[in-house]
Amino acid sequence: MSIVTLLTDFGTVDGYVGAVKGVVLQARPDAAVVDISHEIRRHDIAAAAFALAQAAPHFPKGTIHVVVVDPGVGGRRRPVVVDNGNHLFVAPDNGVVSLAVPRPRAAYAIESADFRAPQPSPTFHGRDVFAVAAGQLAAGRSPSDAGPPVELQGTLGLDAERRDEHGQYARIIHVDVFGNLITDLAVENVPPDARFRVGGFQIDGIAHTFESVSRGKLLAYIGSGNTLEIAVREGNAARELDVGRGATVEVVEGGKTVG
Amino acid sequence: MSIVTLLTDFGTVDGYVGAVKGVVLQARPDAAVVDISHEIRRHDIAAAAFALAQAAPHFPKGTIHVVVVDPGVGGRRRPVVVDNGNHLFVAPDNGVVSLAVPRPRAAYAIESADFRAPQPSPTFHGRDVFAVAAGQLAAGRSPSDAGPPVELQGTLGLDAERRDEHGQYARIIHVDVFGNLITDLAVENVPPDARFRVGGFQIDGIAHTFESVSRGKLLAYIGSGNTLEIAVREGNAARELDVGRGATVEVVEGGKTVG
Amino acid sequence: MSIVTLLTDFGTVDGYVGAVKGVVLQARPDAAVVDISHEIRRHDIAAAAFALAQAAPHFPKGTIHVVVVDPGVGGRRRPVVVDNGNHLFVAPDNGVVSLAVPRPRAAYAIESADFRAPQPSPTFHGRDVFAVAAGQLAAGRSPSDAGPPVELQGTLGLDAERRDEHGQYARIIHVDVFGNLITDLAVENVPPDARFRVGGFQIDGIAHTFESVSRGKLLAYIGSGNTLEIAVREGNAARELDVGRGATVEVVEGGKTVG
Repeated sequence: MSIVTLLTDFGTVDGYVGAVKGVVLQARPDAAVVDISHEIRRHDIAAAAFALAQAAPHFPKGTIHVVVVDPGVGGRRRPVVVDNGNHLFVAPDNGVVSLAVPRPRAAYAIESADFRAPQPSPTFHGRDVFAVAAGQLAAGRSPSDAGPPVELQGTLGLDAERRDEHGQYARIIHVDVFGNLITDLAVENVPPDARFRVGGFQIDGIAHTFESVSRGKLLAYIGSGNTLEIAVREGNAARELDVGRGATVEVVEGGKTVG
Repeated sequence: MSIVTLLTDFGTVDGYVGAVKGVVLQARPDAAVVDISHEIRRHDIAAAAFALAQAAPHFPKGTIHVVVVDPGVGGRRRPVVVDNGNHLFVAPDNGVVSLAVPRPRAAYAIESADFRAPQPSPTFHGRDVFAVAAGQLAAGRSPSDAGPPVELQGTLGLDAERRDEHGQYARIIHVDVFGNLITDLAVENVPPDARFRVGGFQIDGIAHTFESVSRGKLLAYIGSGNTLEIAVREGNAARELDVGRGATVEVVEGGKTVG
Repeated sequence: MSIVTLLTDFGTVDGYVGAVKGVVLQARPDAAVVDISHEIRRHDIAAAAFALAQAAPHFPKGTIHVVVVDPGVGGRRRPVVVDNGNHLFVAPDNGVVSLAVPRPRAAYAIESADFRAPQPSPTFHGRDVFAVAAGQLAAGRSPSDAGPPVELQGTLGLDAERRDEHGQYARIIHVDVFGNLITDLAVENVPPDARFRVGGFQIDGIAHTFESVSRGKLLAYIGSGNTLEIAVREGNAARELDVGRGATVEVVEGGKTVG
């Protein structure tokens, strides 16, 4: 079995995703092509990186993940195959795989003639480069056949969690479809009995489930990615607090900011 | 072949659905994972129940349906495996399978250690409970391995069709994406030459096809689920009549309400 | 392997697409059912035709494409199987396959009893006619088993590119999800050093990539379908130029319209 996942910002209405699927199946007709999402906001590399990091780790060994959120299509960013020792990632080198693959084992530029269409459309590398490369990998070619090894250049430009003279802060790295605020503060760094300040509101302590608070109430909890999240039960925290990606959450312990 | 369908209110942009797919494929890499929908309105159990009832009966024997519309995640509602003698349904016990499975043959609580992740995230049972259980079933485990047999508790709270001293009524149980109004009045209970009153409008008789009326006109017809439906040809009946789920349609025969 | 693609205007929330998938898999449980799109604007035959033409050619020989954008469901348009010598297309005869299959090798009306449900719902031929027919084909039946050979009647009513006494014009045949304007002017008919006039704006020459111009700037380029396209880099050309499908682009060479 060969499993190929797809994650793009193409939407589906234009048939572009269909073309990508066709190219993969042309190379390997019995591949299982699995949609992660095609509804990433256009050019939102950080959102795609988050979705990939949520989904990818759960797939079986050998899965090939194709990620095409690529504002620089046809420009200088490099199409690459990234190997993390378990899965392969076929993507532009623009940071989109950086959350899912913090420590690549190897990366290769996609340069070989048979890993690209003969004359790739400059505007549709999804079909003419990334899908062709994924098809070759699905058909059993080695990632090192794609081209020369490279160092990845792309970064997301999202700061990691930080602790400064004013205390400890968590950064909101994603707002999910429910308006929940997902931060980069790992569970092991959340102090017991902490309070959290965000968007002018304060939350006392960590709730175990959404049902621990009443409907419409704000809560802090450890999310499915094992980091601090902020939500409104059956509501939309991003809208109600008017905060978004990049905003900070102040972490307060024992009446004052953790320092 | 093992077929696993997915029906959620997750949307796809956050990668949560991708995680669910990965977990299923991890357990059974050659399963065919089939999307029913991930665009159910958040927490709309009745809408998911309708979609499941539309889709599920058509799948081959042995199909496993995973349904995660679960406002009570982490709370007291029970994750269950429901067997109707033909298919298995993996879902919270909140009524979401009640239309597709009006008479379960058996139901089991999902309690066994190997039918759940070791430490399920309280906010993501889709991945850590339902997908794990579906993966075990897809890999050949018996539903009774999931846990002890239980009686299902969940209901939708939608009344069935009713007939009272004032006559016969159909209830709108779903508004579809086209704005068509789907009722619970079964074809065999629709009187010949009936008229229908809804939202202040009256419709005479049953149309055989949409093309039986002119564009923009209201019609009553027997829908694909063999119940009475109301639509506007190439229009949106819910919007134009300003009615929605739960509203009643009065059924009139021979000049007066059927009594 | 049997690959069956689906392209509809159903959306997914009502479970109708799920029903179609179930019917196909009932007939051929190991078919690979591949979504092209279910988000085509309701009844927009031309948009579905474009998406199909983008996607279909890339699939392996033997692929079956099911296309259900069918405003005339239950009416007089004929359900057909179209064979282009490489793929089969199962669709209403309303022009929706005309871009993907400009020269059909053969077409057959879907009339045989086993290529339709016993009593097809007049409002859901997607499930009761097209999916049943696709299932039969996926299970190995010949397209000529569907019914008698027919001449296709459906057309899109989009003019081809034209050249008149006033010069050469390209016609916008599609606005994609990014707002890019896709025309019918084939690359071989684009004069070197041409200028383009559309919506009151003028564009000089063909850009090789989006990165050839600054953000927010208008560009003309050869798109992935090898025709002239107009876009705004990281913007929405349809909105900014206020033009849409059917609008013309004037092609000017050497200071005057090409004649």
